[in-house]
Amino acid sequence: MALMNENFLKLPGSYLFSEIARRVTQFKNENPDADIIRLGIGDVTRPLPPAVIEAMKKAVDEMGKAETFRGYGPEQGYNFLIESIIENDYKTRGVTLDIDEIYVSDGAKSDTANFQEIFGINNIMAVSDPVYPVYVDSNVMAGRTGNYNTDKGQYDNIVYLPCTEENGMKPAFPTTHVDMIYLCFPNNPTGMTLTKNELKQWVDYAREHKSIILYDSAYEAFIREENVPRTIYEVEGAREVAVEFRSFSKTAGFTGTRCAYTVIPKELMIYDSKGEAHSLNKLWLRRQTTKFNGVSYPVQAAAAAIYTPEGKKQIKETIDYYMENARIIREGLTEAGYEVFGGINAPYIWMKTPKQMGSWEFFDKLMKEAHVVGTPGAGFGANGEGFFRLTAFGTRENTEKAIQRIKTKMGK
Amino acid sequence: MALMNENFLKLPGSYLFSEIARRVTQFKNENPDADIIRLGIGDVTRPLPPAVIEAMKKAVDEMGKAETFRGYGPEQGYNFLIESIIENDYKTRGVTLDIDEIYVSDGAKSDTANFQEIFGINNIMAVSDPVYPVYVDSNVMAGRTGNYNTDKGQYDNIVYLPCTEENGMKPAFPTTHVDMIYLCFPNNPTGMTLTKNELKQWVDYAREHKSIILYDSAYEAFIREENVPRTIYEVEGAREVAVEFRSFSKTAGFTGTRCAYTVIPKELMIYDSKGEAHSLNKLWLRRQTTKFNGVSYPVQAAAAAIYTPEGKKQIKETIDYYMENARIIREGLTEAGYEVFGGINAPYIWMKTPKQMGSWEFFDKLMKEAHVVGTPGAGFGANGEGFFRLTAFGTRENTEKAIQRIKTKMGK
Repeated sequence: MALMNENFLKLPGSYLFSEIARRVTQFKNENPDADIIRLGIGDVTRPLPPAVIEAMKKAVDEMGKAETFRGYGPEQGYNFLIESIIENDYKTRGVTLDIDEIYVSDGAKSDTANFQEIFGINNIMAVSDPVYPVYVDSNVMAGRTGNYNTDKGQYDNIVYLPCTEENGMKPAFPTTHVDMIYLCFPNNPTGMTLTKNELKQWVDYAREHKSIILYDSAYEAFIREENVPRTIYEVEGAREVAVEFRSFSKTAGFTGTRCAYTVIPKELMIYDSKGEAHSLNKLWLRRQTTKFNGVSYPVQAAAAAIYTPEGKKQIKETIDYYMENARIIREGLTEAGYEVFGGINAPYIWMKTPKQMGSWEFFDKLMKEAHVVGTPGAGFGANGEGFFRLTAFGTRENTEKAIQRIKTKMGK
Repeated sequence: MALMNENFLKLPGSYLFSEIARRVTQFKNENPDADIIRLGIGDVTRPLPPAVIEAMKKAVDEMGKAETFRGYGPEQGYNFLIESIIENDYKTRGVTLDIDEIYVSDGAKSDTANFQEIFGINNIMAVSDPVYPVYVDSNVMAGRTGNYNTDKGQYDNIVYLPCTEENGMKPAFPTTHVDMIYLCFPNNPTGMTLTKNELKQWVDYAREHKSIILYDSAYEAFIREENVPRTIYEVEGAREVAVEFRSFSKTAGFTGTRCAYTVIPKELMIYDSKGEAHSLNKLWLRRQTTKFNGVSYPVQAAAAAIYTPEGKKQIKETIDYYMENARIIREGLTEAGYEVFGGINAPYIWMKTPKQMGSWEFFDKLMKEAHVVGTPGAGFGANGEGFFRLTAFGTRENTEKAIQRIKTKMGK
């Protein structure tokens, strides 16, 4: 008799965004005329820039001619894209990377979810709280987390690093030993960042404990302040302890086009039970060549176009557009008397609910009174309770309208 | 200290196709003028058909305009593609499927490799021998196979189903209980198929043992004979026990474009240790929504175009072209005195090496004497030893030239 992976039974009920969709659908059925504005899920609204469209169509045309047709590409990604990434995203920050230290993929969601496969099942993992649910759920499925404690809203074997009002949403250091540390900066959901010195403390911690940092940097393009590192490899020693995940989803509007990449420096070692060191890069190579077949060629050609002079200019315009939305939300909420985090170096604004209202209660109130949909902080972890996430990815018109409604329609 | 997944240490040395690449490179360095013809790796050479190119460019244009831009799509795939799949690939064969029984993905390699995640680690798996290495290696990484026995060239806990000259390359039934059964028809590497009655015996076996059949049907489009089922669901009872994997890679030249799909009927149940039944479909939904973010929209639009009248006509021409290559290889080798399997309902020809020569010895001889590169059967499993795979995916000119050389240049 075929038996299931029972770790799946440890996952609590519904996924955050399914529950949001359910409540919105119900509200719309009851209020068909309500003009709902969605500032919830982190999906972009601006179209792909012209340079990307042009490059992608050219690549599609190549696929239609025998002389230029491309079949299986390298599982790791094409060199033309990897070289552009190294040149533009790293060399400009003083970071040198080799071609075989970068793996192109179909998304940072896939990569951050799959990467744990090459780790032993008994490693202790740490995540910030609140946290992007994918890090946790993928490890639950693998059997690395222990059981779910319904009272705490936490898994027994995960070390949670609280991000609170008191510590300015900067994750607390673990007080017990951890092996795998998921960090995300600029952070989803809080929108906060670490300075280079703050990040260096994490690198030092990992070097001391032979832990590995899984650094999700999907929102790097939104950093505006000078003292915020663009990549963890700006920090000395990070090459020995950190993997970095990047994505074109938010940088260039690729949420529906699908392309991302992961950096694994060759110095980065992981150990077997005899204490022998193994290259994490080579383990991932083996994983990817066995279980993945590379990203669509036209998609990789499209991604490479963002590094051309026109591409750079065009994606900058889009990012500026979203960051102006972030400013409008941030300042609007502050004027309306809410306490807010983020929105300066990130497209996310993390607001404290008024009067210690629960996240889901505030979700319902905001939807019913202002017809605005956001994301309840509680969906990101126990310490997200009492907070609420808004995103800057809407249209300007909707963003302004939403803030106006929050200012005028929300009875306090 | 971060510890690795030590199951990776059980994988023997190099991956089949890396070893082939190494030997070819060495030979080319030593013989720079040799005009090498590759009939080895199963990659296509014909370009994408015009209907696909047109649809994909149209979809790319949509991504460039705010009104038609698409961000995150459904993880399961767009309905427009799923509806075309159901209508054309299943309804025409008398099989009814619901929209939520199909999951669109970036490749059958990813799906067949990842699907084992939702199974318990102690299930006993069966594979044919020879076999597509991905089924085995993905389960090794997960820890389901036990250790590798170097003498046997097999893993201790896998039940191997020998495909031999004696049984006409049709996998023998297991003599001990198995829970997960990987079957691939038309088969890679042997190119052989099962009749509907033969496949029914597998479905009956699975129903009796509450096993699950993981049916890889990536080469379905190449079936020519009437009594060969196009889908396992033509067999009564298959909906209760079989998952079917399909791909656009070979059907429509998508090896570099990346699109595939997996069918999981809702009747299909898997059990927990208390004996309670759980829907396999719902488990995969949870896995995909957590660890995958859907296939690129332009790629899905491209895939849907193969179901238009022009698309159907165009992909038929390409498949006819490859199957004419298959006929040329099959008949040429037979004339040259080799014993061959496959090539009638599949783009693969599985030949017996002459004089009980080892697969790798024949590989070297064929490369050195005829400058033709194929795939050593031993790379697909212990029972592949003494066999050799050629593929019909080359150009007509190269295919004819390769067969001519095999006829004239191979000293016997």
